[in-house]
Amino acid sequence: MAAFGGWGKAEFASQFSESGGLGIIAALNFPDINEFKEEIQKMKTLTNKPFGVNLSLPHHRLNNSHEKNQAKKRYFKYVNTALEENVGIFTTSGYKAKFIGKRIQESGAIWFHKCVVLKHAISAQESGADAVTLVGLEGTGFKNPLTQTTLINITMAKKLLDIPIIAAGGIGDARGFLGALIMGADAVCLGTALMSTRECPVSEDIKKKWLELDIFSENVHKKIYKYNTKSFMAPSTAIAHQIHILPLKEYLSKLIRDSELIFESFGLT
Amino acid sequence: MAAFGGWGKAEFASQFSESGGLGIIAALNFPDINEFKEEIQKMKTLTNKPFGVNLSLPHHRLNNSHEKNQAKKRYFKYVNTALEENVGIFTTSGYKAKFIGKRIQESGAIWFHKCVVLKHAISAQESGADAVTLVGLEGTGFKNPLTQTTLINITMAKKLLDIPIIAAGGIGDARGFLGALIMGADAVCLGTALMSTRECPVSEDIKKKWLELDIFSENVHKKIYKYNTKSFMAPSTAIAHQIHILPLKEYLSKLIRDSELIFESFGLT
Repeated sequence: MAAFGGWGKAEFASQFSESGGLGIIAALNFPDINEFKEEIQKMKTLTNKPFGVNLSLPHHRLNNSHEKNQAKKRYFKYVNTALEENVGIFTTSGYKAKFIGKRIQESGAIWFHKCVVLKHAISAQESGADAVTLVGLEGTGFKNPLTQTTLINITMAKKLLDIPIIAAGGIGDARGFLGALIMGADAVCLGTALMSTRECPVSEDIKKKWLELDIFSENVHKKIYKYNTKSFMAPSTAIAHQIHILPLKEYLSKLIRDSELIFESFGLT
Repeated sequence: MAAFGGWGKAEFASQFSESGGLGIIAALNFPDINEFKEEIQKMKTLTNKPFGVNLSLPHHRLNNSHEKNQAKKRYFKYVNTALEENVGIFTTSGYKAKFIGKRIQESGAIWFHKCVVLKHAISAQESGADAVTLVGLEGTGFKNPLTQTTLINITMAKKLLDIPIIAAGGIGDARGFLGALIMGADAVCLGTALMSTRECPVSEDIKKKWLELDIFSENVHKKIYKYNTKSFMAPSTAIAHQIHILPLKEYLSKLIRDSELIFESFGLT
């Protein structure tokens, strides 16, 4: 599960973990550190399954000599709080995260770094990350002028990295999921694909609007591939694989069932 | 094999057919119809393997009421000439090709239409095409503001089309090849991936330059994803999968061998 900005909270994340995925709580949804602590405690009452905590590290803060130390202190607070609550999996994104990754790993937890550029993935591996999530141009989250598509990202990453690779960007159905695994991914990170599920905490009206989105319109193209982020709020092209508002559990079990059928169609079992 | 503009001639195409692929002669490389006829005859002396003829139909001619009839007559000449020479496979691209596709099929030959937009692929299916080639944003050939990436193209096309799908765009290694098949393609069309092969009729210096191209540079990104076609001559991102100048036969047999290894790594045979 992607970090999901405002929706990356215990309510949605716990249901994703309960459905067989790895739910993620986005730490910076909670400006108050006590509220963050309570959210993790709430998460643990909602699920016994594994879950993770995400820290999106903003470049403009950590790259700024005035704010840097202040910002680092603040992020350490989140990590320490989560570690005290026995969180075992952390995802970072945005800026270089070695300073936090080290702390995470010294405490016996796992550190995944998420990025959109292959050279940042290589740098994360050199910094000791346990795995990287590589987001392709098809995704709707953060980007960079060097962002490549999921096909290029994953096939190249498989050649250049030794650590596990998590593919993201445009993956919404079993064919995209299995395709990404064949291209070299060890796992897949779902963002937009989950936005139209029953549990996603937005109104049914908005979900219906997303389900009806024409991903082949020029507006969507501009937004997704030309970074024209001002145009309008559009989820990634992965939304096109959704037809109905499905419960998370149903969505994920269909993904697995369809994947098995694809392997069978190749005469493979 | 892609139509390949100026290099889509008997010399290169015959060697691709001899190596196990489907070589393609681009008809409009030959403004003189007799030269085109001679090229097909030459092709038949060079290989007994299947090959095809491509007709790129320019939108500005066929969509122009003054030129349309003249242009259609001209294209029919090429098709008729190739049919007289017993060419069995034709690929069209560019504009609606039903007028030519019908003639091809009435003569017992096969008609593939190549496009970059899913709705054009649907239209080609409605026009009776035997298969469509769908070129993703990763490719470097013709594009459209509605072009999607190969991942989106193929996973969506598999849901919407009944005819066979040929994937193109960014595919250069076994992972991209097998990934495309899993995503829903029945075959793959290679363009850039072949440009650094021994047989490609460009100088070794140019091939070396391509092999050293940084596909993660901003210039390449602009050219490939933002259609900034004036910037410089860059092949698609698929070039990044090539390390050495390989003979076609070696390139293709490595593709197949690596594909088998990938299936084996999944415990599948």
